[in-house]
Amino acid sequence: MPSAEEIKKVVESYVDLVANGTPEQVADLYAADATVEDPIGADIRNTRESLIEFYGVIAAMDKVTSELHWSKIAGDTAVFEFTLITEAGGSAFKITPVDIMVFDDAGKIKTMRAVWSAEDLQTL
Amino acid sequence: MPSAEEIKKVVESYVDLVANGTPEQVADLYAADATVEDPIGADIRNTRESLIEFYGVIAAMDKVTSELHWSKIAGDTAVFEFTLITEAGGSAFKITPVDIMVFDDAGKIKTMRAVWSAEDLQTL
Repeated sequence: MPSAEEIKKVVESYVDLVANGTPEQVADLYAADATVEDPIGADIRNTRESLIEFYGVIAAMDKVTSELHWSKIAGDTAVFEFTLITEAGGSAFKITPVDIMVFDDAGKIKTMRAVWSAEDLQTL
Repeated sequence: MPSAEEIKKVVESYVDLVANGTPEQVADLYAADATVEDPIGADIRNTRESLIEFYGVIAAMDKVTSELHWSKIAGDTAVFEFTLITEAGGSAFKITPVDIMVFDDAGKIKTMRAVWSAEDLQTL
């Protein structure tokens, strides 16, 4: 099992790469058989292609910034809150999810479930 | 599926009953086949008896107080942070976990995984 420090580094990379990396770099943080449910209740994405598509929507914005607020780690699991600000076509949105990630023995994200609802989405 | 409001009420009841209720009242919030991993990495409790034993340790303290800091709900899942202060034999401990709860269709807790480590435990 990865250490808390290793898991924390992946969380920090994730929040950074969602804003500043390529969709492929974000997908590289995930295990081959990973599942992503973002937000919880949405269809579950379970292929690398569907993850690249998902993070590609964010990457296609005019400007994206992100900030990790806090993270908490126990065993194979991280829970963390971050802000993502996306700007496109003159509109800007701010979203503040709490993500739950479970990691595999290789330190890759095995499952990600994002807890957010309409009230966490703000027009700037 | 229970509504976000229904889930929030169970979360509030949980934080209240852990401090002020009986172990049986806390166990009543759980589904019959529920699992509890507290903290994540500990042995998984999966019987009502083991839950009553677990919450009984807290109930046996001289004084217990709790406070819900925040909760976030999406779909069948709640994530929330709370403080639990336990006093016994002249010692007082404060713990601040982030709990992840998944609910069943009846609004009962199906799984609970608590994210906390030594650094979230404080001697008062």
